[in-house]
Amino acid sequence: MRVIVPFDAQSPKTRLSPVLDETEREAFARAMLQDVLATVEAAGHEATVLATVPVDCDAPVSVDDRALTPAVNAALEDADGPVAVVMADLPLATPAAIDRLTAPAADVVLAPGLGGGTNALVVRTGEFAVDFHGASIQDHRAAADAAGASVTTVDSFRLAVDVDEPRDLTEVLLHGTGAAPDWLRDVGLAVAATDGRIEARRTGESAGQRG
Amino acid sequence: MRVIVPFDAQSPKTRLSPVLDETEREAFARAMLQDVLATVEAAGHEATVLATVPVDCDAPVSVDDRALTPAVNAALEDADGPVAVVMADLPLATPAAIDRLTAPAADVVLAPGLGGGTNALVVRTGEFAVDFHGASIQDHRAAADAAGASVTTVDSFRLAVDVDEPRDLTEVLLHGTGAAPDWLRDVGLAVAATDGRIEARRTGESAGQRG
Repeated sequence: MRVIVPFDAQSPKTRLSPVLDETEREAFARAMLQDVLATVEAAGHEATVLATVPVDCDAPVSVDDRALTPAVNAALEDADGPVAVVMADLPLATPAAIDRLTAPAADVVLAPGLGGGTNALVVRTGEFAVDFHGASIQDHRAAADAAGASVTTVDSFRLAVDVDEPRDLTEVLLHGTGAAPDWLRDVGLAVAATDGRIEARRTGESAGQRG
Repeated sequence: MRVIVPFDAQSPKTRLSPVLDETEREAFARAMLQDVLATVEAAGHEATVLATVPVDCDAPVSVDDRALTPAVNAALEDADGPVAVVMADLPLATPAAIDRLTAPAADVVLAPGLGGGTNALVVRTGEFAVDFHGASIQDHRAAADAAGASVTTVDSFRLAVDVDEPRDLTEVLLHGTGAAPDWLRDVGLAVAATDGRIEARRTGESAGQRG
């Protein structure tokens, strides 16, 4: 299946600023993109990165300087057949999770993200358009219903965790296996227990060189 | 399968105090327990609540005043056959998610929780003991490996979201279908968008009477 991976190449992941500076956030966002592209390929699909500016990565890049929603909708309109959209900030995604996303035969398949977002979806109908603003998972269910499209939801922790805030880094360190957790460890981040909760923290020691 | 549902009946869910007072937290914890028990029953299993004090609920209650880890291990030792443990603060759990937990034939099946916890598990071997302290998902994987037990993980958003903090209420309002989201709406909680993020907030209006 054709898989579109939207990627924000300009000032990505600003909510990680308490833990990572701007240069680090850009490097980490690219490590997550690398993991997502490798996962999509391992699942047997062809990824195209959809970005506002050219990006150097292991997949063809389609440049569209519009916002996420109109850019994805334009890509869906251009599509000839089923299309998956998988966000670039899902470093926990595995080939098995992508299989579970693409397996159902429904017109629209939705993978909810934490906080009401839609982290991945499959569209098999021309009657459906995305809108990533706000609690998009509810809006996408309603839009599919309104279009008379069959809709199903994928219950996946690995697709639900998009990395936006420092607490999400804990999940990457605990459950990730690719470039993103390696990158975090290289800059000295590790999980630490705090009054019963687990957090990602700088240890003060970097395992690798930083540029 | 026999399903143990550990429930903290005394001062539960203290981290929800920014949003709910003590009486409310107790009532909400019972609404979540009610949802979990209904889900386990709908999946075709027999639930036993494991609590430190007697609890009035729709299932047999086993009282054990020890901490969570020794109480669960005592229940596992007493078991004659496979046992599932499903936490009482998983109001997003569905019968389908419980099916995915109990389906694999592995000696130990683990469902990770957000933040490194273990929210549900199945144990089919006498060689495995739980330890819920800290990043228990890693410890449980290691303990299963050390015991020579086969281990598999269930990738479920609905089992990963345990309700500990105010942000978790957003997930209950967006994805829950039982007594817990009803209870939250009755006390006036609703999802609201804040600078691109979705939060659960008091609207100032209660849909129902509060005791």
